[in-house]
Amino acid sequence: MQIDTTAPASPAESHCPAAEPCARRRGRPRSEAAEQAIVAAIERLMEEGAGLADLSIEGIAAAAGVGKATIYRRWPNKEALLVDVVARLEAPEPQLIGGTVREELLAMMEFMRRRGLAKRSRWVLKTALGQLNNWPELRSMYQEQVIEPRRELVRQVVRRGVAEGVIRSDLDTDLLSEVVMGPILLRTVFWEDAPLDDPALAEQLVDAVLNGIAAPAPTAAPAAAAPSGGESH
Amino acid sequence: MQIDTTAPASPAESHCPAAEPCARRRGRPRSEAAEQAIVAAIERLMEEGAGLADLSIEGIAAAAGVGKATIYRRWPNKEALLVDVVARLEAPEPQLIGGTVREELLAMMEFMRRRGLAKRSRWVLKTALGQLNNWPELRSMYQEQVIEPRRELVRQVVRRGVAEGVIRSDLDTDLLSEVVMGPILLRTVFWEDAPLDDPALAEQLVDAVLNGIAAPAPTAAPAAAAPSGGESH
Repeated sequence: MQIDTTAPASPAESHCPAAEPCARRRGRPRSEAAEQAIVAAIERLMEEGAGLADLSIEGIAAAAGVGKATIYRRWPNKEALLVDVVARLEAPEPQLIGGTVREELLAMMEFMRRRGLAKRSRWVLKTALGQLNNWPELRSMYQEQVIEPRRELVRQVVRRGVAEGVIRSDLDTDLLSEVVMGPILLRTVFWEDAPLDDPALAEQLVDAVLNGIAAPAPTAAPAAAAPSGGESH
Repeated sequence: MQIDTTAPASPAESHCPAAEPCARRRGRPRSEAAEQAIVAAIERLMEEGAGLADLSIEGIAAAAGVGKATIYRRWPNKEALLVDVVARLEAPEPQLIGGTVREELLAMMEFMRRRGLAKRSRWVLKTALGQLNNWPELRSMYQEQVIEPRRELVRQVVRRGVAEGVIRSDLDTDLLSEVVMGPILLRTVFWEDAPLDDPALAEQLVDAVLNGIAAPAPTAAPAAAAPSGGESH
């Protein structure tokens, strides 16, 4: 409880009391050499074929050239370390950009598109995410620390949209959020064959979920027996 | 190639040439005792704690009280057997119902909602699907035999909607299909905490994806400086 989270990361070893998992301070730069060596060692071990489940604190410490205590000073246990490593393999978490509701949704959609591309192209990230999904404890930590904040960010924008009268108010926030993010998550998580490289994708999806996929209704006037040749251009 | 697929399943052992995997004839009732015993044995073994990967043809045959040849007569290999068993644990696959585009989308959405409920309540199905996801070969067979036909059914309805002028024609079929199914798949596959028990969910989702989540635009006339008290009802 003594941690000053506003202080810049020290190049020397920071003193994190074990009761306060340092791994929780996501988003902060942690440039310290020992930490980088630990994370790099895990990536290297995975690239050599080790699964997340095969890794031990002993093995990681040896590969990183640090003592076990150096690891435990930063992460309370192996699971917290691995979740943190997987999170670091990803792009920095999305943030609100201070735009309109549509712009915020667009930014999140684009974040997910880029994350999907990264997952496909980076073997270590893809493998780590796959293995994490098969490890219930890790999966729920990752869910809580990485996925849940993203979900909450979408909910926040949706709530704002409803408050501003931009998003319909007759559906609950979760449902609206799922309509927004469902399609891009399908494409990034389920369908490995679905293309993600079109930079227009995020905008197409935001417009499709905002405006719907139904064909636009014909303009009211010509629909009935309006006199022909009415509207100019 | 000699199989008459229109013939009703015989109560006696059918003679399936090994070259023609019988497991492919999905959707047909296969009431045969030996087959049922094999499938029931796998379910029982899983309930006793065996993972899909632990199961062997020998072990399954012994548990079912049949010879290995009885299994190989029906399934070309263990993977095909396991995929078939997982598929049988699910509800019968969705079919077109002969309704309007909206009704077809509704039926598929409702199928997915019920499938999600079944997956949550049936331990064996949930476990089998989880394990299948961790086994690339099984996963791709399941993808091809179960998921892909569902995807194609959605595409088919979407294409029909575009042809009928009910669905917008400026987005490609895959994207439109993902907008339709993304939200319900999120809720059934990703968010185990998201409620599925509301029977109105499918209709809410179909309407949300067809009409969009943007607040409806105010009717044209009163938006500008129209004379007040204009429209009657």
